[in-house]
Amino acid sequence: MQYICEKNRMTNLIVGTVAFDAIETPYGKTDKIVGGAATYISLSASFFTDKLNLVSVVGGDFPQEAIQMLENHNVNTSGLQIKKNEKTFFWSGKYHNNMNSRDTIETQLNVLENFDPIVPKEFSESEFLMLGNLVPSVQQKVLDQMKKRPKLIVLDTMNFWMDNCWDDLIQALKEVDVLTINDEEAQQLSGEHSLVSAAKKIQKMGPKYLIIKKGEHGALLFEGKNKFFAPALPIENVFDPTGAGDSFAGGFIGYLSGQNEINFDKMKTAVIYGSVMASFCVEKFGTEKLTEISKKDVQQRAMEFVELSSFSL
Amino acid sequence: MQYICEKNRMTNLIVGTVAFDAIETPYGKTDKIVGGAATYISLSASFFTDKLNLVSVVGGDFPQEAIQMLENHNVNTSGLQIKKNEKTFFWSGKYHNNMNSRDTIETQLNVLENFDPIVPKEFSESEFLMLGNLVPSVQQKVLDQMKKRPKLIVLDTMNFWMDNCWDDLIQALKEVDVLTINDEEAQQLSGEHSLVSAAKKIQKMGPKYLIIKKGEHGALLFEGKNKFFAPALPIENVFDPTGAGDSFAGGFIGYLSGQNEINFDKMKTAVIYGSVMASFCVEKFGTEKLTEISKKDVQQRAMEFVELSSFSL
Repeated sequence: MQYICEKNRMTNLIVGTVAFDAIETPYGKTDKIVGGAATYISLSASFFTDKLNLVSVVGGDFPQEAIQMLENHNVNTSGLQIKKNEKTFFWSGKYHNNMNSRDTIETQLNVLENFDPIVPKEFSESEFLMLGNLVPSVQQKVLDQMKKRPKLIVLDTMNFWMDNCWDDLIQALKEVDVLTINDEEAQQLSGEHSLVSAAKKIQKMGPKYLIIKKGEHGALLFEGKNKFFAPALPIENVFDPTGAGDSFAGGFIGYLSGQNEINFDKMKTAVIYGSVMASFCVEKFGTEKLTEISKKDVQQRAMEFVELSSFSL
Repeated sequence: MQYICEKNRMTNLIVGTVAFDAIETPYGKTDKIVGGAATYISLSASFFTDKLNLVSVVGGDFPQEAIQMLENHNVNTSGLQIKKNEKTFFWSGKYHNNMNSRDTIETQLNVLENFDPIVPKEFSESEFLMLGNLVPSVQQKVLDQMKKRPKLIVLDTMNFWMDNCWDDLIQALKEVDVLTINDEEAQQLSGEHSLVSAAKKIQKMGPKYLIIKKGEHGALLFEGKNKFFAPALPIENVFDPTGAGDSFAGGFIGYLSGQNEINFDKMKTAVIYGSVMASFCVEKFGTEKLTEISKKDVQQRAMEFVELSSFSL
């Protein structure tokens, strides 16, 4: 269980939304539950490291217990701004039968509308930086506040920012080591249909590593001419895909922050641990599953991935 | 290069269409070229075995050179019926930009309309039987002519037969060891959305092994509680997906027929060799690539699959 090694563990700074979600899937429906990219990222990463710093914003309506829950998962929440007179970011969505597509029913930006991320001084030398899906200009503001260039910067984004904030996104990408997007977003960002061609172009935009998340079809990792295909665990009942991509990112960066070096082999393993965390996430609504499992469960599931993808010629 | 071992190689009987195709993809367009499931299956399998028996039908318009080409690839064509006064099965289709969907422009059944498969006596004890995509009742007629139960029966089918010949298909499935279909077909056949649930149901219909082909997303193999996920090689330019599934089947059964035993581990390797053959197939139009490559190319590409999917925890 190499990943539990406590030596040389480095500090992670996680920036992203902390939110309320209301979710409907063919399996059921939730009222407002705690969600948001940074929540999923932090919870997932907490299985690999106890050095987690969070920068985000919530409103006065955000429950203290939820903040305590993050603290209980090794998350330093001193960078979580609480805007007493405002409301927490809220998203509600409905998944279709195949779980591969969803409709947004409502988005209330609330505190996110004027979010000015403030990186506390003690966070500004974090060695690992995870920029969850946010307005690219907000991601840039975080980059600008880092006193020391982190050892690894991972950025997640989505088609919406490609449509609406292209220039800011392109600017931020220049500073990034790893970009995580889905296959359609890789095509949009590169203008290439083939993912191999897309990867080549995107790597010229800044990120040395590109991870293309394909949901139930697994994930692809590209670095130069190196390629790695991580399977997704076939799951009998995908209850709720919300947060799967963020859980992936959390497992990915959490694992890497415990390693002595970063290279393609470590990245491959990190993609597997990311896939492990995503596979747990979708088994229950919201963050429920992530708060139930143990490190042992994580390791056991990682072994299932070995079984799932190993063969000999 | 274990697969080149010549000992105990067993005989394959391949049944399926031998056809003319006219194909249009974003990369170009062909006139009538030689295609058909049994053609792709045979060519792919020929990299693994020289014991290939073909049962199919063509018209008087089918070129002798194409038959010779099959013979040159170790295919015994004495079970290929030639209907002098009829025409060969013809299909034309056009692939859309994403290559994942296609429109059939024209289908001329011709000789296929009244195809009565006759298994020559010397083929009726073949140890491996590959039933390519055909009317289920024709597949059944072949099963009925086998003197000895083959060691392994693989059946490929498609949604069209589920829509139109349900009962015949269900009947044939009872005798089959391995079924190869795509993900939507697995859902249709089982009535289950989850592929894990679909696999459970389908395995109760007869096939001990189920292979779900997902094109560019790889392939899944199920046997009881065992699962294996084979990646697809990310390819820069997919020129023509025609025949990829059949090339997969050919590599799969060809590899297995050279093995001393059949178990889940051998099946996993067979799925990889199937994926290797499919990855070659799509790189040029029709069967062109399959006729250009060598056994060494096959083995080198198999090593690429090892690279692509190997990791350590």
